[in-house]
Amino acid sequence: MPRQLAWRGDCLFLLRGMFDVIVGHRRNYTVPQGYIQTWAEVRGRQVEPFSIVRQEVEIVSERLRHSVSTGIPALKTAAEYFFRHGMEGKRLRPSLVLLMSSALSPAVPPPEYLQVDLRPAAEHAPELRRRQQRIAEIAELIHVASLLHDDVIDDAETRRGVVSLNNVMGNKTAILAGDFLLARASVSLAALRNSETVVLMSQVLEHLVSGEIMQMTATSEQLLDLDHYLAKTYCKTASLMANSSRSIAVLAGVPPEHVCGAVCGSGDVVCDMAWSYGRHLGLAFQVVDDLLDLTGSSSVLGKPALNDLRSGLATAPVLFAAQEEPELRPLILRRFKQEGDVALAMTLIQRTQGLRRAEELAAHHAKIAADMIRCLPVAQSDHAEIAREALIQITHKVLTRKK
Amino acid sequence: MPRQLAWRGDCLFLLRGMFDVIVGHRRNYTVPQGYIQTWAEVRGRQVEPFSIVRQEVEIVSERLRHSVSTGIPALKTAAEYFFRHGMEGKRLRPSLVLLMSSALSPAVPPPEYLQVDLRPAAEHAPELRRRQQRIAEIAELIHVASLLHDDVIDDAETRRGVVSLNNVMGNKTAILAGDFLLARASVSLAALRNSETVVLMSQVLEHLVSGEIMQMTATSEQLLDLDHYLAKTYCKTASLMANSSRSIAVLAGVPPEHVCGAVCGSGDVVCDMAWSYGRHLGLAFQVVDDLLDLTGSSSVLGKPALNDLRSGLATAPVLFAAQEEPELRPLILRRFKQEGDVALAMTLIQRTQGLRRAEELAAHHAKIAADMIRCLPVAQSDHAEIAREALIQITHKVLTRKK
Repeated sequence: MPRQLAWRGDCLFLLRGMFDVIVGHRRNYTVPQGYIQTWAEVRGRQVEPFSIVRQEVEIVSERLRHSVSTGIPALKTAAEYFFRHGMEGKRLRPSLVLLMSSALSPAVPPPEYLQVDLRPAAEHAPELRRRQQRIAEIAELIHVASLLHDDVIDDAETRRGVVSLNNVMGNKTAILAGDFLLARASVSLAALRNSETVVLMSQVLEHLVSGEIMQMTATSEQLLDLDHYLAKTYCKTASLMANSSRSIAVLAGVPPEHVCGAVCGSGDVVCDMAWSYGRHLGLAFQVVDDLLDLTGSSSVLGKPALNDLRSGLATAPVLFAAQEEPELRPLILRRFKQEGDVALAMTLIQRTQGLRRAEELAAHHAKIAADMIRCLPVAQSDHAEIAREALIQITHKVLTRKK
Repeated sequence: MPRQLAWRGDCLFLLRGMFDVIVGHRRNYTVPQGYIQTWAEVRGRQVEPFSIVRQEVEIVSERLRHSVSTGIPALKTAAEYFFRHGMEGKRLRPSLVLLMSSALSPAVPPPEYLQVDLRPAAEHAPELRRRQQRIAEIAELIHVASLLHDDVIDDAETRRGVVSLNNVMGNKTAILAGDFLLARASVSLAALRNSETVVLMSQVLEHLVSGEIMQMTATSEQLLDLDHYLAKTYCKTASLMANSSRSIAVLAGVPPEHVCGAVCGSGDVVCDMAWSYGRHLGLAFQVVDDLLDLTGSSSVLGKPALNDLRSGLATAPVLFAAQEEPELRPLILRRFKQEGDVALAMTLIQRTQGLRRAEELAAHHAKIAADMIRCLPVAQSDHAEIAREALIQITHKVLTRKK
């Protein structure tokens, strides 16, 4: 299923080009001069991508903290912990979701939407921007819940430089807190009363678990297979970004007349592009994460360097390296469990082009993500254009981040 | 919210009686002779309640086993474990759901619905009975997932006489398997594309977690409070039965003309009755469970006798006993943690009417549940009547069960 969708997303460019040539619809795809000028101006401004939605992300976080701690006072400490402690400024998912909302919006949202929405999760929010904020909240709830359970499953001691919740409050609280966040996400999602988004976000839950299971139970052949790695990475990281971006487009219900050209002739195509942006950005993000684990220091990363190798995981750079250096393969297959395996693996990797090829892979996915935004139908406002530029800049930031 | 709904459900009788007297609508509530005769015949047959849907419950279980083990082969053993091992014949929730489906059905479902439905969980099932079978499946998925996580949280060694999954396969697999079942439930629910049922079943998830947290974090006052106990029990046990029963009525979309009398004048009222049946049956079920923990032997129960006291839980019989015997209160407040507390508590309880009063409480809720079925609009088929009689008989069975 993910692969079919990936194929569909990736083929958009090809299809559009073919359509232009074969059916001669190029004449319909006109970009007004004003649009290009504004676009150039926006580029000139050097937009700081996250700053555009920082205030709105903060009100989403505030709503999360409020709803968790008032809903279940016993979880107040835990809520404070995972929505504040060391996690601030790391709101990649809600930022993406809100930027995508703006990118598809005809105008700047009115200022009242920058007040915290204290209606209960179970209450239907009829206003589009509030519904999109709920998706941002649901994405964050699902993300944090999966971190909590993963940390219990992996016996993690730290999470991004902060002691992990299971380490502070015990496994039981961490499991329960994760379940609570998932339940709250389900209630909030149900209250949107939009079957399509319920389908999309429930797929994310299934992907997160499938990804974890794929990682735990890979066969020897799969352990060495880059396609298996990418499928697992889609499930564990990219599906949440892809499907929450798509949910935003679904809620926006982009009508056909807003869509450019002949091939991009329906709202479905915009949904596909939003999904594809999230998918490719997520893949790029994870490959860079893999690289940083091999090249960064633990003090910068906030987690032990070489953590993946120590956990037995062969990530993209290692798999590329193993294609050149067969000595790496037995190490991968025994999940680096023998004394000295991790150090030997690092020596072997450095003899190869593994790191460089992984960088290229990340850049490849980041570029497709950026192209998806460029391929969107004509923006209807400066607000949308700035958000699009921010989404593109995030594809660069993901590649150059140091932690 | 639960209390408001409870109030609404419980007031139905009173309202109906009042309406009959005040507005004189009694004349509209006519029960055809044929109906009464058939009803009497059904009673004469002494229907074995679970046998009526046993075959259909088995095909739901078969679908569960199949979908879990083919979806994630690594979970095959776990799936076999929780959907077969010692769990057979205990399918209370899917049985209730399918009996409720029949009780609101105008005819016997065609035999093709007794073939296993192997369509994926994510695929929309347009046929009403298949959709109701999905609710049965979702209820079982949520139930088993909550057992798996509860067992990890409580460090349980056994579950109904069988070694618990966390004990056999480790906490990690148990957490992951629970998450997988929840994800599968969400996907299946989303595929029904019915917002109302998504809302109802997502509330169940929240209730399950809230109940666990209420239990873990009760204040001294709450530990001695029967209302707190009942609210917690609704969340932990009855909400799943109540909301899955209601979902069945929602899917059936009982049209107004099928509803008897003036007050029961809308499908909403049938939904309330279905919900109320599940709620009261669930409460009765749990109070009997509490009694069996105090009076049953571990070999019959399949779990250690006095398990609740040993876990620090003061259940309904203990709370009733404490109203007569103040010496029990400090023991409850320290969660029976001092040496000899459990034995002393048992001695004190036996001096009181605690056990008898808990039996009365269970009988009270079982009676309301049965009355809810009796209050349903005129059945449209023998099939529905037999299912209703079975639902009523289950309210008796719950009271007389020995394990």
